[in-house]
Amino acid sequence: MQKQNGLIFAADLKERRKTLNLTRKISDYIDAVKVNYPLVLSTGAEIISDLSDITDVIADFKLADVPHINSRISKIAFNKGASAVICHAFTGEESLKSCTKTASEFDGEVYSVVNMSHPGSEDVMDSSLPKLCEISKKADIDGVIAPGNQPDKIEMIKNKIDTKILSPGIGAQGGKGKKAISAGADYIIVGRSIYDSTDPVKSAKKIRDNIKMYYSNE
Amino acid sequence: MQKQNGLIFAADLKERRKTLNLTRKISDYIDAVKVNYPLVLSTGAEIISDLSDITDVIADFKLADVPHINSRISKIAFNKGASAVICHAFTGEESLKSCTKTASEFDGEVYSVVNMSHPGSEDVMDSSLPKLCEISKKADIDGVIAPGNQPDKIEMIKNKIDTKILSPGIGAQGGKGKKAISAGADYIIVGRSIYDSTDPVKSAKKIRDNIKMYYSNE
Repeated sequence: MQKQNGLIFAADLKERRKTLNLTRKISDYIDAVKVNYPLVLSTGAEIISDLSDITDVIADFKLADVPHINSRISKIAFNKGASAVICHAFTGEESLKSCTKTASEFDGEVYSVVNMSHPGSEDVMDSSLPKLCEISKKADIDGVIAPGNQPDKIEMIKNKIDTKILSPGIGAQGGKGKKAISAGADYIIVGRSIYDSTDPVKSAKKIRDNIKMYYSNE
Repeated sequence: MQKQNGLIFAADLKERRKTLNLTRKISDYIDAVKVNYPLVLSTGAEIISDLSDITDVIADFKLADVPHINSRISKIAFNKGASAVICHAFTGEESLKSCTKTASEFDGEVYSVVNMSHPGSEDVMDSSLPKLCEISKKADIDGVIAPGNQPDKIEMIKNKIDTKILSPGIGAQGGKGKKAISAGADYIIVGRSIYDSTDPVKSAKKIRDNIKMYYSNE
């Protein structure tokens, strides 16, 4: 994924045509589209291939299985045209390594989840953060996912692992793009503020312009 | 899932026809078939509906996302005919509750992952075991997944949470069905020892007979 805009579109939708049309329209303002299971299960895994004709696709499968199953799922995603997969670090170094190993066969990337932003993520994940960063480092990942609505967490992660940081939770979940970037995020991931907007193209451009200006001032 | 055999078939395959034929042939000896993402992504989510005409289907999606996404994925699985979903406990109580809440709308079940059996699961998951059991209890799950090849873990979990225990890792991964049952497992989950067998029907029957005899002696 080449950084031009710093913006990733979270296509948390269920309809094939709407997803493809919307992604196409905003493609100038994003560096990648992130797809998750609700979309892929509703429309079929081919949506990855269709989207990959438009922009880079990040398969947000939050992989959390044993190594050989993680590897098989990654392989399917990369074969369909994904540029990257998102994998949990929680299931351990071997499970994460099975993804980075598979990714290397496709010249693909792996982003690991070291923290999350929803209520309940503090139950276990917060106290595991240092260990999850350590596992990610050992598994040689290409970047991590860190909550955009918690800049202190981004800073903490930035101090523990020198890698790209992708931050969801911007907009609808209360995160502010500039604060996330200021704390160390390299890309912000935005969904609802674009697809629920009355003018998604305008919204995408505005978000991109705002953060791009900010990146330039870094 | 009604317990008659105590055996769940892990259909870790990629071909639709083979999966359906094999499940049909061994259906007298199993209580459910467990499907995972490699199969569902390769064949399409309709495989869940097709299998549900034969036996109960457990969607082993190891859900590990934010609550509203976990809920959406569960809904798709139940709508397709799944009887149960498998969800991680480590993403916290709210994420797990989003699954049990969705399941209740479908009269479905949720099994939570409180421990795993692969190399690397000791990195973080082992030390989180008590907390993962606590979260599972609070989320009112229908059962837990516990490693069949580690009877001590099954006993430990049995002491922490009074619920059904489903144990994978039997056979190819070294677990012994009887030991798992003796430690407290209610169902064993078997994949490779059935589908890689030269006579899968005979193998399924033999495994079922062995454990059934043992259950009867409980």
